[in-house]
Amino acid sequence: MEDGRVPQVLESHDIEIRVRYSEVDAMGYVHHSCYPVYFELGRTELLRQNGIRYRDLEARELYYVVARLECRFRAPARYDDALKLTTRTERLTPVRVDHDYRLFRESQLLCEGRTTLVLVGRDGRPTELPDDLFEILGGSARRPVVE
Amino acid sequence: MEDGRVPQVLESHDIEIRVRYSEVDAMGYVHHSCYPVYFELGRTELLRQNGIRYRDLEARELYYVVARLECRFRAPARYDDALKLTTRTERLTPVRVDHDYRLFRESQLLCEGRTTLVLVGRDGRPTELPDDLFEILGGSARRPVVE
Amino acid sequence: MEDGRVPQVLESHDIEIRVRYSEVDAMGYVHHSCYPVYFELGRTELLRQNGIRYRDLEARELYYVVARLECRFRAPARYDDALKLTTRTERLTPVRVDHDYRLFRESQLLCEGRTTLVLVGRDGRPTELPDDLFEILGGSARRPVVE
Amino acid sequence: MEDGRVPQVLESHDIEIRVRYSEVDAMGYVHHSCYPVYFELGRTELLRQNGIRYRDLEARELYYVVARLECRFRAPARYDDALKLTTRTERLTPVRVDHDYRLFRESQLLCEGRTTLVLVGRDGRPTELPDDLFEILGGSARRPVVE
Repeated sequence: MEDGRVPQVLESHDIEIRVRYSEVDAMGYVHHSCYPVYFELGRTELLRQNGIRYRDLEARELYYVVARLECRFRAPARYDDALKLTTRTERLTPVRVDHDYRLFRESQLLCEGRTTLVLVGRDGRPTELPDDLFEILGGSARRPVVE
Repeated sequence: MEDGRVPQVLESHDIEIRVRYSEVDAMGYVHHSCYPVYFELGRTELLRQNGIRYRDLEARELYYVVARLECRFRAPARYDDALKLTTRTERLTPVRVDHDYRLFRESQLLCEGRTTLVLVGRDGRPTELPDDLFEILGGSARRPVVE
Repeated sequence: MEDGRVPQVLESHDIEIRVRYSEVDAMGYVHHSCYPVYFELGRTELLRQNGIRYRDLEARELYYVVARLECRFRAPARYDDALKLTTRTERLTPVRVDHDYRLFRESQLLCEGRTTLVLVGRDGRPTELPDDLFEILGGSARRPVVE
Repeated sequence: MEDGRVPQVLESHDIEIRVRYSEVDAMGYVHHSCYPVYFELGRTELLRQNGIRYRDLEARELYYVVARLECRFRAPARYDDALKLTTRTERLTPVRVDHDYRLFRESQLLCEGRTTLVLVGRDGRPTELPDDLFEILGGSARRPVVE
């Protein structure tokens, strides 16, 4: 990036999530199956901030499927909480992307997560990001690709 | 129908539904948005009992979309309840089908519902059930079609 | 109310809803069971605009349960659509409230809905809104109560 | 366990899960947020096979909260698939339990998962399984507790 020709890529992005009543379980806590949904919102908005809508990937018959998911739950989120989710791209290659996530209520860390997504075509087989998208997302610019 | 040439069509079918933890809200009640999901299970199994899998309709590029939904909630269902859902075909024409639903915990009626589905093609436009499917489902056999 | 002592009550409120990937079904349409979740967001935010958080009702052991739900689906919503939901209080009495809902994508009406909620206490039995809340929500001010 | 006084504890249990239409996303695949829901069904039924209903734990103000979740997705599950989920108790101590999960369509492994649950009381603080429950679940019988 020394020469400055590479567009500025946002590697991290914050969104606010208001907990829905339907997401809360009998304990009054957000059900753990909702956190992966939040993470998906986070990486979608990170992508959008970088100028790409996930719907446009799909229009090009490119789909990110989740290959791996990890969550550590530190403290419960509750109904109507206004949470902050920080999503960060940990690593991008033409065929996969790793994100990590941290969910907060004010300064309290509630949950940490990590996903690995693999890019597939309409047939479900792994494929590579076209160069234009890979450049926009700055994959090669940021790190050596050692996949 | 006196001459017996019409295949026996099941117009009603019961299934058991065990309430999942993730379906219950902070009051300990099944969230009202889960009942339409239960209804969908009910009509899918009614269809299957009549020899048709909904996935096979989709393989023929036929899709039932919900045009109307009504529910009356009489009493709450709770976590781990073993519920009985009775699904009945109220009316079938080549382009739409009306179902009604009654959900019970033992003899107690918890919820009543009704849906209208419209058959569409891949383009989202209304279409008609092919004759073979319409005959299997016994639409014309059962009632005059006055759509 | 001509004397102006009654606080201005918002009877209608708009929110934006961005369709989540997890809400879309195999047709690419928002699953019909998600619309009641949207309606709940709408009436929660209408309440908040009037100065009441639903969580504060629950803290006073007051709960609104859904007694009736109706939806008419006009056209499908799709992934990533930025929808506008208009929620209106149709009628408020001390024990129940009727809302109606209209969901739009730009100027196109996608879905209309209506709910009846009944106020219950911790024991699940119907109860009445305390006077302070009823006044804030302007129930008696707006319409004769003919329950 | 040589003397036979310890009740036979099932450490593993299989259930069948039929994929619901509402669980499938626009790719026709089960959304990844549904797998944690399946896992919860699996461990609930494993518990039931051992003579304990999770609802009875809650009646005693004992709650298992998810502290850690991991999933590896090998191949997509699809609408209407009849899946087999194998749930196994990996380790039980008075305060936590680790499960692992394998989800199959016929002989094909679709997903592997693992969870750690922590037992808490009504106040959300970690607590210990009462002796009667711990014995039923055979925790001490099976492995040294080295928590």
